[in-house]
Amino acid sequence: MIKQRLFTPGPTDVPPEVLVEMARPMFHHRTPRFREMFAEVSAGMKKIFMTDNDVLTIAGSGTAGMEAAIAEAVPRDRKVLVADGGKFGERWVKIAKRYALDTDEVKLEWGTALSAETVKEKLATGDYGAVVTVYSETSTATACDMEAIARVVRETDAILIVDAITACGALPLKTDEWGVDIVASGSQKAFMLPPGLAFLSVSERAWKVIDAQKPRGFYLDLRAYRKSIAKDDTPYTGPVSLIRGLKVAVDMINGVGIETLWERVSLLAGAMREAAVEMGMKVFSRQPSDSVTGLLYPAGVDDRFRKVLQDKYGASVAGGQEKLKGKLCRISHLGYVDPLDTIGLIAAMEYALSDCGASVEIGKATATATKILRDWR
Amino acid sequence: MIKQRLFTPGPTDVPPEVLVEMARPMFHHRTPRFREMFAEVSAGMKKIFMTDNDVLTIAGSGTAGMEAAIAEAVPRDRKVLVADGGKFGERWVKIAKRYALDTDEVKLEWGTALSAETVKEKLATGDYGAVVTVYSETSTATACDMEAIARVVRETDAILIVDAITACGALPLKTDEWGVDIVASGSQKAFMLPPGLAFLSVSERAWKVIDAQKPRGFYLDLRAYRKSIAKDDTPYTGPVSLIRGLKVAVDMINGVGIETLWERVSLLAGAMREAAVEMGMKVFSRQPSDSVTGLLYPAGVDDRFRKVLQDKYGASVAGGQEKLKGKLCRISHLGYVDPLDTIGLIAAMEYALSDCGASVEIGKATATATKILRDWR
Repeated sequence: MIKQRLFTPGPTDVPPEVLVEMARPMFHHRTPRFREMFAEVSAGMKKIFMTDNDVLTIAGSGTAGMEAAIAEAVPRDRKVLVADGGKFGERWVKIAKRYALDTDEVKLEWGTALSAETVKEKLATGDYGAVVTVYSETSTATACDMEAIARVVRETDAILIVDAITACGALPLKTDEWGVDIVASGSQKAFMLPPGLAFLSVSERAWKVIDAQKPRGFYLDLRAYRKSIAKDDTPYTGPVSLIRGLKVAVDMINGVGIETLWERVSLLAGAMREAAVEMGMKVFSRQPSDSVTGLLYPAGVDDRFRKVLQDKYGASVAGGQEKLKGKLCRISHLGYVDPLDTIGLIAAMEYALSDCGASVEIGKATATATKILRDWR
Repeated sequence: MIKQRLFTPGPTDVPPEVLVEMARPMFHHRTPRFREMFAEVSAGMKKIFMTDNDVLTIAGSGTAGMEAAIAEAVPRDRKVLVADGGKFGERWVKIAKRYALDTDEVKLEWGTALSAETVKEKLATGDYGAVVTVYSETSTATACDMEAIARVVRETDAILIVDAITACGALPLKTDEWGVDIVASGSQKAFMLPPGLAFLSVSERAWKVIDAQKPRGFYLDLRAYRKSIAKDDTPYTGPVSLIRGLKVAVDMINGVGIETLWERVSLLAGAMREAAVEMGMKVFSRQPSDSVTGLLYPAGVDDRFRKVLQDKYGASVAGGQEKLKGKLCRISHLGYVDPLDTIGLIAAMEYALSDCGASVEIGKATATATKILRDWR
């Protein structure tokens, strides 16, 4: 009878309105009803992505979206710069190499992000046809200065491909204004849905590269998605229930307004960071992302903290990966999470840290977060 | 996109496990499958009521259960003592009068409860065949000393009929051990279900009175329910979905253990009362119930508090009734509510009070509650 609460950086909590919508009876995807719904969803997605270009929806996880972008939108006769500051950057390097692209991997210390200066320096050679980077690296809870990087890339002819999987809908991202060519995201993050959908916005510049090259695959050939979306349709079986849920979620997001949501996420993250310090934890990242916070345990505390937090208090947070395994927990500020949840979570973190033997003044961090979150709107 | 949270003293929040169970396909109630389920539910209900007698389930609200008890189990040739310390006590007086019972109404100041001394004094006359009282009067958030009252009534031949609608499953209640003849409750309280079911445990002594009198109604004739439950069945159409949900809820409750739940409720109420004082609110009742807390607003604050709490922070609490309208809010500690919810609610109450112009040190009451709720188990 312990109430379960999800604070993992994807899947995130799904609103009851969305769950109920997805539980409604199935209907066929090759129908006017589906196309009408899909047209509305697509229009709403453009607002969230802040783009006039189509936002393509692929039935698959975020990785499928990034694979499609890397496989199709990187000019194959030039180098591709891939930033690797964590598990996801690492994955994009793997994909670039799998497609035999001339990959220049920029290895970043975990907890740091690609800088605009590095990109500028590299691109000055003129060798690069594309830059692939992660806006918010979920494994290290680190965000780069996406706007600055985009500014640098826009001075060249290189295509900018951004893994915005835990960024889009949570961190400031003005796709067209900043000139980001490809923005990839996934349903189980700020979109408040179960996993199963990848989203990609593609600029005119990126389409030129894609059109100039032969497709590498079939399912992930973005041209098929572009052709279909022009008719408000999907090239292969449309994921009916997820799109139904997405319709509700997109309306909820646009009802609040994407820029207000960015501020909310930022406030939650700020409160969590302040509270964490008072609980004796350290923010791992040197450039912390607001969509997910990575916290190092105090001395003497290990990953049992997460088990206690889950088993005794019903709060689920993510752990560290690879070298951070057992040393860190990661807490989401994405999607359907609010100050009341976050305040409750911080109280539970105080309890769990204390259960693990850490010296915590119960209530102090909770009070601090309550004060900071007063500014919620 | 404001997360909705229900802190009203019934309906209370329904666990997702129960909602999902109730959404499953319908089946017919005159089947072995229904009877098997109903038998399991009934066995589980006996544990919660702490009785070896059957707990009858009526499709109806709590009032239906109380009407059945008053109409059938009060000896019609003797006086009935009815305690009236709020909206519900008042209702039981109305029912007793509707059935032309010789009703002695004990008017109690709101915020006080019937005392064992009063009962003892009254019953000493030997005129009374029954005592009808409310364990936890929801309108005034006041609880009586049920055990002491039962002890006094047990020394006589009077039948003790208890409205335990917001008490059963939340406040200590040992039906057989204390000798409470009829305990009435409802599904939308500690049972974590939507409204729609009334529950009644009936002692052998009460059955003797019932059997000695002609039934007054048909649907609420308890003999029909007793006859059916002996065959694990319901006399009229069994409320299939609610019983399905009840099965899940009862298993959750008995999984934790009813006595542990009483302690949990008591701890939540204690934390709320302490926090309220720090927010400048006053506990209305002189004998506060642990299942619901009634709080008087600070000077200058009115019922706009509840509107702000609901509209800005998504937290729904009940208001005052009649003379308490606009002066008081009522907060539930019943059923599927835990410390993390309650801590978040207290933060939201701090915000809403401050929005209404009250002087509140944001975070202070939240920290106090966090400290107290550390003892949760």
